[in-house]
Amino acid sequence: MPTIPDPEAVAGALARLRERTPLVHSLTNVVSANVLTNALLAAGATNAIIDNPREAGEFARIADAVLINLGTPDDEQARAFTAAAESAHAAGHPWVLDPVGVGGLSWRTELAGGLLAHRPTAIRGNPSEIAAVAGLESTSRGVDSASDAAESVPAARTLLEVSEVVSASGPIDYITGRTADGIATARVHGGSEWLPKITATGCALGALGAAYLAVAEPFTGIVAAHAHFSVAAEFAEPHANGPGTFVPAFLDTLAAVGPDDLRAHARIDSAEH
Amino acid sequence: MPTIPDPEAVAGALARLRERTPLVHSLTNVVSANVLTNALLAAGATNAIIDNPREAGEFARIADAVLINLGTPDDEQARAFTAAAESAHAAGHPWVLDPVGVGGLSWRTELAGGLLAHRPTAIRGNPSEIAAVAGLESTSRGVDSASDAAESVPAARTLLEVSEVVSASGPIDYITGRTADGIATARVHGGSEWLPKITATGCALGALGAAYLAVAEPFTGIVAAHAHFSVAAEFAEPHANGPGTFVPAFLDTLAAVGPDDLRAHARIDSAEH
Amino acid sequence: MPTIPDPEAVAGALARLRERTPLVHSLTNVVSANVLTNALLAAGATNAIIDNPREAGEFARIADAVLINLGTPDDEQARAFTAAAESAHAAGHPWVLDPVGVGGLSWRTELAGGLLAHRPTAIRGNPSEIAAVAGLESTSRGVDSASDAAESVPAARTLLEVSEVVSASGPIDYITGRTADGIATARVHGGSEWLPKITATGCALGALGAAYLAVAEPFTGIVAAHAHFSVAAEFAEPHANGPGTFVPAFLDTLAAVGPDDLRAHARIDSAEH
Repeated sequence: MPTIPDPEAVAGALARLRERTPLVHSLTNVVSANVLTNALLAAGATNAIIDNPREAGEFARIADAVLINLGTPDDEQARAFTAAAESAHAAGHPWVLDPVGVGGLSWRTELAGGLLAHRPTAIRGNPSEIAAVAGLESTSRGVDSASDAAESVPAARTLLEVSEVVSASGPIDYITGRTADGIATARVHGGSEWLPKITATGCALGALGAAYLAVAEPFTGIVAAHAHFSVAAEFAEPHANGPGTFVPAFLDTLAAVGPDDLRAHARIDSAEH
Repeated sequence: MPTIPDPEAVAGALARLRERTPLVHSLTNVVSANVLTNALLAAGATNAIIDNPREAGEFARIADAVLINLGTPDDEQARAFTAAAESAHAAGHPWVLDPVGVGGLSWRTELAGGLLAHRPTAIRGNPSEIAAVAGLESTSRGVDSASDAAESVPAARTLLEVSEVVSASGPIDYITGRTADGIATARVHGGSEWLPKITATGCALGALGAAYLAVAEPFTGIVAAHAHFSVAAEFAEPHANGPGTFVPAFLDTLAAVGPDDLRAHARIDSAEH
Repeated sequence: MPTIPDPEAVAGALARLRERTPLVHSLTNVVSANVLTNALLAAGATNAIIDNPREAGEFARIADAVLINLGTPDDEQARAFTAAAESAHAAGHPWVLDPVGVGGLSWRTELAGGLLAHRPTAIRGNPSEIAAVAGLESTSRGVDSASDAAESVPAARTLLEVSEVVSASGPIDYITGRTADGIATARVHGGSEWLPKITATGCALGALGAAYLAVAEPFTGIVAAHAHFSVAAEFAEPHANGPGTFVPAFLDTLAAVGPDDLRAHARIDSAEH
C-alpha cells in the first residue's frame, strides 16, 4: 500500500517552515485578505497580496509560492490570475488553486478551466468544488457533485493529471497525492466545530498549503498544512466562547503549535483500508 | 393604532432563520466583507460575496436574498449592483439597499437613484442617508438631512413608495413599515456603547436584514434583525474591555442568542404614542 | 541641537484628537481596510474609505486629512490616488503617503514617483520603502536599500525636499522632520513583539498619522502617532496570548490610552547624540 505522509514528516515540514519563513504571493478574495495574511504570519510564513495584472507576474517570480483563490474575481484580477499562474509555472514555483464557487457560477468556472493549463501544484477546495474542477478536466464523463470529501476522491484522482496533490476539506479532510508507490489518499482528522462557522478559514488553509509547498514535496506539504490547521483548531477550541472568540484563539494556536505538537497530535490515516 | 412586530414575532423569525439557514448574496464594501460574513454565519445564515458584473445577476437568482451596500463602489461593482438588483427584483427575491455615503458624495447618490427603480424590499442606513435617499425619490420637496433617527421618519414614510420597510440606525433604531392597518414605525432599543465605535456593524445589520427577509415578511424581518443585533450587543458588552474585544464577543453572542432571548430581552415599542 | 517633540507635545496632540475627532479619508489596501478603520475609531478619529476615481477628489476636499497606501492598487484605484492627492494638496489638507512595496515592484514605484509631485505632508514606510522612495526623488545618487530604520535616516532627510516629515518603522521608529532650529530625527521606543507578526499594523499607523496631522503640526503629529501606537502596544501585550488575541487587545488599548499615559510612558529621544 502506498505510504502516506506521517506525523513525523509533517513535523519536519513545520520545522522547515519556521526556519525558512517562505514568502507567499496571494491573489485572493476581499473576505479573506486580512485573516489569511494573519494566519500565514502566525503559522510562520509571510504573505503579500499583489493582485493587479501589472505586477502579479513580476511578483510570482520573486515569491516562494503562489495562491490563486477565485472567491471575488473581477476582470483585472482575472488577468492577474493568469499572469501569476503563468509566471509561477515558468519559474518552477509551486502554486495552489482554490476554486471557490466553481461549478455554481459560470464565469469563474471558465477562469478555472483556463488556469488548469498552468498546472497548479495543488488544488484545494470543498468537495463540490473539487468535483466541478474535475468535471472541467474530464471530457469523457461528467463528474457528479460530491456532497462529502470522501466522495470527491475519484474527482481528485482525475485532477492528478494536471496537478500534484488535491485536497477536499470537510469534517475529515481528504488529500490525494502521488507517492513513490502510486497514488494515495490521506485523511486528516480533527479541527473544531467552529471552523465551518467562520468565513475564510478554507481560504487561509489554501494559502498555508502554498507556504508548505515552498518547504516540502507536494503531498507532504499539503498534508502538513491540513494537519497544522486541524491541531491548531483543536487547541483553540477550549479558549473560545463562540465563533467570534474562536478566530483570535485560532491565530494564537497556529503560532503556538510546534513540530512536537504535530508529532503528538496530528491524526493522519489512509483512506484505503 | 397599527400593530408593530412584537418580541414573539421576532422570536419566530429567528427560529425560522436557524432552521432554514438562508443564503445571502452580498455586494458590499471592502471594510465590511469579513465581519459581515462572520456576522451572518454567527446569526444563522450563510453569505456569498459575488460582486462582479459577470456573475452578480446569475447569483441573485440563486440566493435567498440580496444585500447591496454602496460603501466602496467602483465602475465594475456598480454594474454588478444593477445586475443583482434587476435579477433579484425579477426573481421575486428580497433585497436590501444600504445607501452608505449617499447625500454626501455625488456619484453614489446617482447610483442609489438608479437602484430605487428596482424596488428594494428594504432600505437601511443612518438617518442622514435615509433622508438623502428620500430626497432622491421625492421630487415635490427637498427632505432635510436628519440628525437623529426619529427625525428621519418622514423620509422613511416617503420611501415606502418604492420599498416595503425602511430603517434608520441610531442609539434607538426606527423601522417604518406597512401593517394590515397602515404604516407604522417601530422603535428598537438596546445595543451597546461600543457599536458606533467599530466599523461595519451597520453594514452587517443590513446584511442580517436581508437574511431575515428570506424567512419573514418585510416589517417583521427588519425589526427582527435590529432586535437580534441589539440583544446580542447587550449580551456582548460585559465580555468586552473596549472596542477591540467587543467584536469577537459580539459575534459570539449573535450566535448564542436564541428565540427565547428575543422573547425575554427584545425591547420594541411604537414610535406613535 | 534642534528640539524634537516631547511627551508633553504628543499628549497635547492626543487631547486635541479626542476633542476634534478628525475625519480621515483613506485609500488603502484590501488587507488593512477593516483594522485600519477600527484603529482610527479606537484612537479617537473617524475614517471613510473612498477609493474610486469618481469620488476620491471630491472627498479629499471634505475630509480633514488623507491617507494614500499603495498596498493593493489597480488602475481605478491608481487614478483615485492621483485625484485625492491633487485635491488634498490644492485644498491645503495634510496627506500621508504609505509606499507599500515601492522599490520591489515596478508599477507602484512609478505611481509613487507621480504622487510625490503632490507633496505628501508625511511619508511613512518601512526602512527599505523609505530608501526606495528617496531613490526616486534623488537623481544625483542611488540610495541603498536600508535594512534598519536608523540606516534610512539619510533617505528620510532627502525626502524632506518634497515632504514635511518622514518616518520609518522598526523595532525603534525613526521620525525625521523640521524644527525651528533645523532638521532633526526623533526615535520612538516601545511597541510589542507581536506588532510585526500581524498584518496591516503599519498601514493603520500611517492612517493614524494622517489623523494626527489634522490636529498638530507635522513633526509633532507623526511622532504622536508613533508614540500612541507604541504605548498602546505595550499596554496590550499582557492581555494577549499570541498574535490573534493581540489584535483586539491592541484596539482596546488604542482607545484606552489617554494624554496622561503618553506623558508617563511615551519614550521619545533624539537620534543625534
